Amino acid sequence: MECLNQAGLMEGSECGGRGVCGKCVVRVLAGSFADIKDKEQYKRFCKEDEVLACNCTVTGDATIEVGYGRDDISRKVHLPRLTEQVGTIETSVSKVYIEMTPPNLHDQLSDIERVLAKLPAKTRFSPSILRDLPSKLRKADFKVTCTLFEGELIAIEAGDTTKACYGCIIDIGTTTVAMYLVDLLTGAVIDARGLANPQRVYGADVLSRITVGSTPEGLAKMQALIRQGVKGVMHVMSAANNISDENVYQAVVVGNTSMSHFFLGVDPSNLAVAPFVPCYRQSVTLKADRVGLPMNPEGYVHVLANISGYVGSDTIGVAMATKPWEKKGITIAVDIGTNGEIILGYKGWVLACSAAAGPAFEGAHIEQGMRAGEGAIERVSLKDNKVTLGVIGDTAPQGICGSGLIDIVAELITAGLITRRGSFVTEKDEGFNQPLASRMRTGANGIREFVLAYTGEYGNTKDIVLTQKDVRELQLAKAAIAAGIEILLKEAGFTTDNVDRCYLAGAFGNYLDKEKAVVLGLFPGIPKEKIIAIGNAAAEGAGLCLISAAQRKMSDRIARFVKPVELSTHPDFNDKWIHCLNFPKITRQ
Amino acid sequence: MECLNQAGLMEGSECGGRGVCGKCVVRVLAGSFADIKDKEQYKRFCKEDEVLACNCTVTGDATIEVGYGRDDISRKVHLPRLTEQVGTIETSVSKVYIEMTPPNLHDQLSDIERVLAKLPAKTRFSPSILRDLPSKLRKADFKVTCTLFEGELIAIEAGDTTKACYGCIIDIGTTTVAMYLVDLLTGAVIDARGLANPQRVYGADVLSRITVGSTPEGLAKMQALIRQGVKGVMHVMSAANNISDENVYQAVVVGNTSMSHFFLGVDPSNLAVAPFVPCYRQSVTLKADRVGLPMNPEGYVHVLANISGYVGSDTIGVAMATKPWEKKGITIAVDIGTNGEIILGYKGWVLACSAAAGPAFEGAHIEQGMRAGEGAIERVSLKDNKVTLGVIGDTAPQGICGSGLIDIVAELITAGLITRRGSFVTEKDEGFNQPLASRMRTGANGIREFVLAYTGEYGNTKDIVLTQKDVRELQLAKAAIAAGIEILLKEAGFTTDNVDRCYLAGAFGNYLDKEKAVVLGLFPGIPKEKIIAIGNAAAEGAGLCLISAAQRKMSDRIARFVKPVELSTHPDFNDKWIHCLNFPKITRQ
Repeated sequence: MECLNQAGLMEGSECGGRGVCGKCVVRVLAGSFADIKDKEQYKRFCKEDEVLACNCTVTGDATIEVGYGRDDISRKVHLPRLTEQVGTIETSVSKVYIEMTPPNLHDQLSDIERVLAKLPAKTRFSPSILRDLPSKLRKADFKVTCTLFEGELIAIEAGDTTKACYGCIIDIGTTTVAMYLVDLLTGAVIDARGLANPQRVYGADVLSRITVGSTPEGLAKMQALIRQGVKGVMHVMSAANNISDENVYQAVVVGNTSMSHFFLGVDPSNLAVAPFVPCYRQSVTLKADRVGLPMNPEGYVHVLANISGYVGSDTIGVAMATKPWEKKGITIAVDIGTNGEIILGYKGWVLACSAAAGPAFEGAHIEQGMRAGEGAIERVSLKDNKVTLGVIGDTAPQGICGSGLIDIVAELITAGLITRRGSFVTEKDEGFNQPLASRMRTGANGIREFVLAYTGEYGNTKDIVLTQKDVRELQLAKAAIAAGIEILLKEAGFTTDNVDRCYLAGAFGNYLDKEKAVVLGLFPGIPKEKIIAIGNAAAEGAGLCLISAAQRKMSDRIARFVKPVELSTHPDFNDKWIHCLNFPKITRQ
Repeated sequence: MECLNQAGLMEGSECGGRGVCGKCVVRVLAGSFADIKDKEQYKRFCKEDEVLACNCTVTGDATIEVGYGRDDISRKVHLPRLTEQVGTIETSVSKVYIEMTPPNLHDQLSDIERVLAKLPAKTRFSPSILRDLPSKLRKADFKVTCTLFEGELIAIEAGDTTKACYGCIIDIGTTTVAMYLVDLLTGAVIDARGLANPQRVYGADVLSRITVGSTPEGLAKMQALIRQGVKGVMHVMSAANNISDENVYQAVVVGNTSMSHFFLGVDPSNLAVAPFVPCYRQSVTLKADRVGLPMNPEGYVHVLANISGYVGSDTIGVAMATKPWEKKGITIAVDIGTNGEIILGYKGWVLACSAAAGPAFEGAHIEQGMRAGEGAIERVSLKDNKVTLGVIGDTAPQGICGSGLIDIVAELITAGLITRRGSFVTEKDEGFNQPLASRMRTGANGIREFVLAYTGEYGNTKDIVLTQKDVRELQLAKAAIAAGIEILLKEAGFTTDNVDRCYLAGAFGNYLDKEKAVVLGLFPGIPKEKIIAIGNAAAEGAGLCLISAAQRKMSDRIARFVKPVELSTHPDFNDKWIHCLNFPKITRQ
């Protein structure tokens, strides 16, 4: 696990390395490992050729296969051409090719002045570019490409490299980190990748990570984990596209307030205790070498502004991507991740809140939950009294991902197998008298469950089930989102009837069946016509700030302008939340 | 030698560690060393309890005494109160004590915003101060002192520390590094120290150091040497005055162009080959943590601008300290170090050049030369046919320092023992018929010499002599300076008669007998009444730039405004130089 962490390849862990969650299974291709714990303990999680990364020791060369969900983001998430949003590219980075006359005894201008003479007046420069400038200029025969960042000369490269100009979007989710490589000349997204947030080894939830990060050593560890992870993916992404790290000049980072604190190595401890005060909210701009990312060391990394201790820069990203203040009527945007960030905009104002949905939508805390990778059930149909599964990669099902979970529960509700209160039907209930009810049973641990696939039914090696507990997890999650939406509307003096559009952000949204969301009451009272999936809007907003200095400045203004609504202390929240735990009444067609 | 270098305590070496210059002698107080070379080789330089640092190996704990010239600067150099020059202090650094109301559920302002609310609008901040801000604020009960650097919040300290606000002047000479600790509240110089430039192990002259610094590895080595040296003295100086490194917020660095390149780690190789192009000339400002000096990591280090490849920021320092453009008539200022930098100012313009004097004025390349420390002969009188010596520390003479060298030669010329052409008189000459001529002899190596002190005469353990070769060294040095002055005057269309004042900068100038300088023709044709010793003007100018942002900005303008005159390629230089090798005609009183 330590090796995987250092390499930025640790996919996930929910138990913090105690060997009980089974999320860090890796396949051993060559070599072997010394197991610390008894092999018996592993049986629950590991096949013959697998080990738990958290509980085995590297004793020599070995080759392993990782990648649970590793290709998730690249498969599922794509950003629209960012240029369509901003119209014209107006990046902070520009490159210009220049040719100079070499010095002679009558022209003893210093090297850097010779360069600056070809650039706009008052161009500043980073002192470190001086270091090897003399030999660089002479080797390049005084023909070089200069990279400027808002009036500062940050790089000098031999020859004409004007075409190689890249930036990176880094969207740090509590569960998943999504990264995008962007061509700064065209605004095109060249590559997109994701990794499980390496901090997950210290717990799936933000609070346990803040606890770890409350000591200087713990904070350093948490910062190193996320930075190492980002570093690894960023470098892999550049390399895969034959791009030199040196030609990546700018990065924009978004994440919830805690993740931003971790990324910057800022003490997050007060985010966990009343009065829940962040250390900072403003956007922060750093030289790349201070962050240690694989990019031009003189480039810049921008961490966008937070709105409050619980509403972070990822929400600013969503706001920038949706810009509700520019739209007619009332706009809601919901970004479903470990927390559900919700914004409500109406002309001159924007409200925002964060609903603690928990990781159920990401397949975590679900008995057979998994991330949306190969083998995950993402679609379920119960039509004609038959279970039909849609599995990612058209392979044998291994578990259930977030969108699959919603599909299953919605289908079970529609079929009458789950009540409005979220209970599996029993003999007493009407719905129990149908063939599919035969798939319901009481599991080994006394919890009722619905069998989606019996062993062998779809080539699966074990029964795939949805438990009553899973349904409860989903209820908790969806109630948090729904109550958040209702509170924001109430704060604004509106009801759900007034909503003109409801954007659903996040990778998740692209794969959510809107009809099913309506069945669950995820967006209470909002008809499916008004629900629009917009993909990873947080990253898209960050992307706008990457390719446009004006958009980045706007994001700073927006951060001061959005009013955060604190749900946990809101007097109406608890009532709303309890009310939303139930599923809506079904209007049978 | 390696240990001494790393500790910044290496006093000097002219042979680069070959064991033949004897400049790195240290006294062994406890422990012992394994000598690499045969002890016989040392006899020339070492007493019983001494070893050559360059040729012995540390084999265990040992205590040694260093300090040849170590206390030189602190003893000899003092800066006038800098405030007298600028009138009012207007530093870039300011400190302000603030008290805040702690946050509560109705006031969830982030920590940094809470601080910024008490500071001037639009105050920026260094991201790294966020790291431990939450715990710092709470431990300090929200009572802290903020340090601002030109609108940027660079430090937050618990309690009221407004009185602790310091800066540092770093004057990097080829031979000696002079450093001054300054109270930024009052402009007072609190401490002054010097060390032999640790780079001297790679040669006394700039050219051999540039050769070493022409490879990336060599450059890194040269940079590390000077930075380590500066670091050591800076920390010692703060510690000696009970000042925390954290409370030193700003430093101004001056030095010749090569030294500035080395300090910044910038490739100096082209300074040594035609067309002698520096990599940069502008002033460079860096965050302190980029330089690694023992000061507040978020403070700033300014390396002042250079004028040309051979006229560096030390000359800008002299220009700022003397400000010839503000004075009536024609001003000359000469800063005598390893190179003699000369400026000539007249109202609207300033010319500058650098004369390659060599290290003779610093006691190097002189048979029994030494730096101006204890035991150095600094004054000589030949009155009444008697040699009377003035020795630093009133102890037994050990050698001759730069000002002593000038005294001796001037006295010998006045006494008629050295001719105008610089030769010791022989039987054929008139001056040979005087009692003092008996002290002249031919040394072991066939070179004529004058015995200043026979063994035992002043408690000295060896004969102290001045050789014919030493006189030649002095001639070469003084001719370079004199020719430089004449060239500058000619360029400006003046003669020595037009000069209104001639400032003599450098520690050296304070101890030079002006009358003797006139005897040598150091400042040809300029009467002694017009020669004014002004101490370390380079450091003083740097000091002005430390305590005044306006002066620092002015120094940038001045750097662009001073016209450099290149002596080595000047058509008249050679003739002038040969002419100046002779000593002036003596007007016998």
